[in-house]
Amino acid sequence: MEQANVDTILEQVRNALAVGDWNQAVALVEALRPPDQADVFGELPPTEQDQLLPRLDLEDSADILEELEEEEAAEVAARLKAEELAQILDEMEPDEAADLLGDIAPDRAAEVLAEMEEPDEVRPLLIHADESAGGLMTSARLTLHGEMTAGQAIAHLRTVAPETEDVYYLFVVDAEIRLVGVVSLRQLIVVPPATRVREIMDADVIHVRSDTDQEEAARLMARYDLLALPVVDGERHLLGLITHDDLVEVLEEEATEDIYRLGGVPEEQPPDVAIPAALRTRLPWLMVNMVTALISGLVLSLFKITIARVAALTVFFPFVAGVCGSAATQALTVTVRGLATGELSPRDGLRTMGRELAISLADGVVIGGLVALIALMLGEQPMMGVVVGLAILLNMLSAGIAGALVPMGMQVLRVDPALASPILVTTLTDTCGYLFYLGLATLSLEMLL
Amino acid sequence: MEQANVDTILEQVRNALAVGDWNQAVALVEALRPPDQADVFGELPPTEQDQLLPRLDLEDSADILEELEEEEAAEVAARLKAEELAQILDEMEPDEAADLLGDIAPDRAAEVLAEMEEPDEVRPLLIHADESAGGLMTSARLTLHGEMTAGQAIAHLRTVAPETEDVYYLFVVDAEIRLVGVVSLRQLIVVPPATRVREIMDADVIHVRSDTDQEEAARLMARYDLLALPVVDGERHLLGLITHDDLVEVLEEEATEDIYRLGGVPEEQPPDVAIPAALRTRLPWLMVNMVTALISGLVLSLFKITIARVAALTVFFPFVAGVCGSAATQALTVTVRGLATGELSPRDGLRTMGRELAISLADGVVIGGLVALIALMLGEQPMMGVVVGLAILLNMLSAGIAGALVPMGMQVLRVDPALASPILVTTLTDTCGYLFYLGLATLSLEMLL
Repeated sequence: MEQANVDTILEQVRNALAVGDWNQAVALVEALRPPDQADVFGELPPTEQDQLLPRLDLEDSADILEELEEEEAAEVAARLKAEELAQILDEMEPDEAADLLGDIAPDRAAEVLAEMEEPDEVRPLLIHADESAGGLMTSARLTLHGEMTAGQAIAHLRTVAPETEDVYYLFVVDAEIRLVGVVSLRQLIVVPPATRVREIMDADVIHVRSDTDQEEAARLMARYDLLALPVVDGERHLLGLITHDDLVEVLEEEATEDIYRLGGVPEEQPPDVAIPAALRTRLPWLMVNMVTALISGLVLSLFKITIARVAALTVFFPFVAGVCGSAATQALTVTVRGLATGELSPRDGLRTMGRELAISLADGVVIGGLVALIALMLGEQPMMGVVVGLAILLNMLSAGIAGALVPMGMQVLRVDPALASPILVTTLTDTCGYLFYLGLATLSLEMLL
Repeated sequence: MEQANVDTILEQVRNALAVGDWNQAVALVEALRPPDQADVFGELPPTEQDQLLPRLDLEDSADILEELEEEEAAEVAARLKAEELAQILDEMEPDEAADLLGDIAPDRAAEVLAEMEEPDEVRPLLIHADESAGGLMTSARLTLHGEMTAGQAIAHLRTVAPETEDVYYLFVVDAEIRLVGVVSLRQLIVVPPATRVREIMDADVIHVRSDTDQEEAARLMARYDLLALPVVDGERHLLGLITHDDLVEVLEEEATEDIYRLGGVPEEQPPDVAIPAALRTRLPWLMVNMVTALISGLVLSLFKITIARVAALTVFFPFVAGVCGSAATQALTVTVRGLATGELSPRDGLRTMGRELAISLADGVVIGGLVALIALMLGEQPMMGVVVGLAILLNMLSAGIAGALVPMGMQVLRVDPALASPILVTTLTDTCGYLFYLGLATLSLEMLL
């Protein structure tokens, strides 16, 4: 089966609720897979959500709270009784339960924790920073010891973790719960049952400390194709695991963050965030942009006399500033993405600049030449063609250099290149463009009249 | 252990090669994990690569060819003897082997296939389009039948697939190899060995057809948190599996594609692609941009007389066109990303436009007001402040509407919003900005002098 048609089921659930047929509504929701359950549930009005949730299996309720958007889940949780919420949290993955508790009022979170049956799986997860490996990890419910046999390990698995699917890697710890190795479930099965775990485990386990940035943890998992990544403290005590679902989530989050920042939205937020929150992120960035526009504006004001004499010069502003700005954005985009995926690093700076310089030289010759032709076709003085063509060629070169070097420099300064580079590169290209163009025009003013 | 320091090892390998110590070089490379092996190997000159590769274990050679960038792997493969390459391909994952064969000359690929021991695992994978689920899948080496017992299934696993780790899900087929169910390895272990697979399998298996787009397949895996996704033909015959490493790769690829397109680079390519290839992608886009700049230029030429009389008007171009363009880019970015991740769909069009209109009204009031103040501080006529402020307010509104509606419209027209929207939105904002600003200036010309 492919993805269920959420809209159809939602319609049927609404119809059932309209006639008060709770059994039918419950049956429809419970037949869905968790992400689809959450989609249907999320579209219902709060009153219906509140009536439906207690009628669902605890497990389905837990799945729905795990799959809802964070804010939505927090709203639903806020409307539940503490003991109801505690029961559902006990069924949730510990990391998801901890995230949800972090999103509700601290007093209430404490109250709910007190009502939970297994608060100790969740409590240690609450102390870590959101964007760190510790904030991402879930509790490791199942660990092995080196002296266990493969047969004992499998028996242990049967009794301890019968419900979770995340047991593809089993981590081995010593008596002080320090990480010492890893075996795969498959390895345990294929060896003779009397084999000691110690003999088959891989002692060279890729792991991270809890304060590692979540993006670095995700990159490690992606690079080494890991389904689970153990998280340890400074003494190598096993604190938890990052599982593969988190990997996908972090990679998408980081891609969204880069796309947002390149687009001038410094802070990621859902497309339906409240308008004041959207303004808090977007308006300050426009104000920074306003200051950089002022720089270009002041350059323009230097040339007021030239412009007053040859107003036709302004016709080519969109080429000199705009098209060269697009070329700068191209160079910037390739460089920023290369830095983000690790394909480029600052030590490639010179090579990258050389490449971009060659590309922008070609761009400048072609676009500069074509715009010079356009100038002649529009009936301008021949010198206008020379001035605008030359200005575009020069500005393309500065666009290429800025597009490659600014993000490299930001990376060296440990400022996110996606955040800081676009505005700097655009300002540089605009300002250089006006300087080259109007400077050349002023020098050859008599031939433009 | 965290990621090995590739640079240090590379240095040591180079030193070993410089004194002709092949054993040391081989030992250094074989101690690394595959992605690190490929990084070190990729930095060596071709002659050293060619001498090192035959000295490595076949398995390590296979890992290196799997992990190298596609173009690099194809170059290395092209320099190997057909029988050497065939031996290495036999050790590679079938999907990776098929990809590599697709990247070398067809004649040679046929020759190499003929030399392989297990060409039948690879041959069926060669016929599918690169960007389809079929192009992504690998052969399913291990399938179960419903009448098998759990104990038999585990025995089967021990004999058939002792080396592969990708056996977390086991797919169940009927006598005609049609997909009928799935069990997890964990389930097989926890049930009594005499239990029939049929009794514990989940018959409702999420699957895709081989012609499904790879992005859709990856989105399904991410949404339902799948480690493997079975690929079938029109009659539900199991053709292969997409594994979780492909999921991560496709998600990264699609994010890169969106980032590139938003940045005016229509076709994804590595940051070190050859310069002519970079120009083939980037220059045509600048030429499209040149045409749209011409539209803004023609609008400007309508107002030459106004500009000649009040050249100071140009000082505010960077605000009217530039800052409003940034606001449009913000709206565009949020909308395009929302459409890509599925958080927005075209039916949210009106709501999204309403939001963006409210945001841009606030932006327009604040930025318009501030720029009016700047105009006064620069000693311009009070009317200049009114004209520029009002023009910015009006143009912010068009920026918000265009930023939200253009990508929605592209999605409806089935054109990638990331590709088509930026250039259209920027042109609209620039052109409207000049029209509003210079139009208002022309109307109030006497008060600007």
